[in-house]
Amino acid sequence: MTGSDPWPNLAGRLTDDGHVLPVRVYFEDTDFSGWVYHASYLRFMERGRSDFLRLKGIGHDALDKGEHGGARGERLAFVVRHMSVDFAKPARIDDVVEVDTRVIEIGGARIVLAQTVRRGAATLARAEVTVALINERGEPRRLPAEVRRRLAAGEGT
Amino acid sequence: MTGSDPWPNLAGRLTDDGHVLPVRVYFEDTDFSGWVYHASYLRFMERGRSDFLRLKGIGHDALDKGEHGGARGERLAFVVRHMSVDFAKPARIDDVVEVDTRVIEIGGARIVLAQTVRRGAATLARAEVTVALINERGEPRRLPAEVRRRLAAGEGT
Amino acid sequence: MTGSDPWPNLAGRLTDDGHVLPVRVYFEDTDFSGWVYHASYLRFMERGRSDFLRLKGIGHDALDKGEHGGARGERLAFVVRHMSVDFAKPARIDDVVEVDTRVIEIGGARIVLAQTVRRGAATLARAEVTVALINERGEPRRLPAEVRRRLAAGEGT
Amino acid sequence: MTGSDPWPNLAGRLTDDGHVLPVRVYFEDTDFSGWVYHASYLRFMERGRSDFLRLKGIGHDALDKGEHGGARGERLAFVVRHMSVDFAKPARIDDVVEVDTRVIEIGGARIVLAQTVRRGAATLARAEVTVALINERGEPRRLPAEVRRRLAAGEGT
Repeated sequence: MTGSDPWPNLAGRLTDDGHVLPVRVYFEDTDFSGWVYHASYLRFMERGRSDFLRLKGIGHDALDKGEHGGARGERLAFVVRHMSVDFAKPARIDDVVEVDTRVIEIGGARIVLAQTVRRGAATLARAEVTVALINERGEPRRLPAEVRRRLAAGEGT
Repeated sequence: MTGSDPWPNLAGRLTDDGHVLPVRVYFEDTDFSGWVYHASYLRFMERGRSDFLRLKGIGHDALDKGEHGGARGERLAFVVRHMSVDFAKPARIDDVVEVDTRVIEIGGARIVLAQTVRRGAATLARAEVTVALINERGEPRRLPAEVRRRLAAGEGT
Repeated sequence: MTGSDPWPNLAGRLTDDGHVLPVRVYFEDTDFSGWVYHASYLRFMERGRSDFLRLKGIGHDALDKGEHGGARGERLAFVVRHMSVDFAKPARIDDVVEVDTRVIEIGGARIVLAQTVRRGAATLARAEVTVALINERGEPRRLPAEVRRRLAAGEGT
Repeated sequence: MTGSDPWPNLAGRLTDDGHVLPVRVYFEDTDFSGWVYHASYLRFMERGRSDFLRLKGIGHDALDKGEHGGARGERLAFVVRHMSVDFAKPARIDDVVEVDTRVIEIGGARIVLAQTVRRGAATLARAEVTVALINERGEPRRLPAEVRRRLAAGEGT
């Protein structure tokens, strides 16, 4: 990030213990109830995870090209294995919400994250998410050492 | 449902203990990994819940117009309070999957459902979903007697 | 299609001059205005095109595996090059709309289709859509003879 | 916008003749082709229009509450009446694209905008979009004087 970045903070910011991403609520995120559609929060959380990884130097595109794949050089992708989500309060059109992402556990082949969607101090949704790495044939793969090292490091690259 | 229905089974079918809805996987449901995007399964499950309620005679539109609202005649809508989802196997473009929906528990103000997305005998995703009724101001409302009666009945109306 | 198909008409039906697909409006398709989100009509139309091609024996998956690729056996995919859409009347939650699809022109490397989203006799949206075939590197490809033959034929396979 | 805004430029920026919004491509925007799903560009463009109006002081929420409704105080919403879109080049996961929005024409009851989705100097998609204001019953409404004045003004409020 330098002064010449035309869009600083587009990927949010790393925090002391994770990452925060602002998300604007647009038409596409709402439903006829007038509030945000429940599955839209999962899209917001996925954006938070993607940008957290991005600021840690782990890109989906690089994974897909096998650049983090270690010796094998396999094409890799993160997939969600489990999500448990509480929907506490609804967001509305034009709101700015913030997605907080924090690593709870780094296992051999999976990462567990805690994610919260907030509007100011109010928690709107809260989730625990387990993601795993798979190769092109859908087979689970151990986290490459470089991915583990980047996630464990206290700050971005 | 009569012989002249141009699109029989568009809302799936009631089963002995719930409901089944077929869902085709289109471009919109997939992502660049080549598989179905994880939040798309939540959309499929919401379609299953909506059509289950529909075949039980409980329409979103009727709820929104206050027609199931009991004495008050308030505008009501179902919202998801909690979801716990396991993603077991991925679906792909052109697949036909089936969403099974079953009521586990009917409480005073909430319903707990078990939902499964299958492709033939293979379980792709499995969820436990808690939904609640709210009024226009987002306040929780007890399930109207008519809604409870319709859900408890062994078959559609 | 045989009598044992558990979900007949899931892909709609071929008509004298094209194809018709029923589409139910769910929560996911609406926005806070209470009506269907404008880009949802494009999703409905894409489903119509996909199922029209499917009933003509042209599957996205088969194209992606190079099975319609002619001599080269290249992986192919249809992409939208141009769309012109009029939004006339809005659809609402719980509506059943029908997507009509008709081929207007088959060129060497592109197909022009007319698509309409109707609710009964009322036209909700009307579009002219130009699609083209590309290979994995995004390069335009001529329509394989088999694809042309299947599209020109008066009925499905 | 002040120095204490935690997320400056979240709504993009007004330009000499319109507005520019950066948009990150996430999983949700792509499809199994590996590229961005065609209808996702419409979502990007709608975000651009919403943020353009926002920086001009015209909020969806304020319209919905009737605050720009003039004498009548009716609840108003913008709807898309017509879109003509050319899809020139595809965007991919992790890309940052920019949505340019420019007013071409302000009529009595409609606004015509030109919108472009760019990645650097490359045009990915180009659209002409006609929007209109409607009230809660879907009836067309003339643009309130305040909305016209704000749109015609050379800069934001």
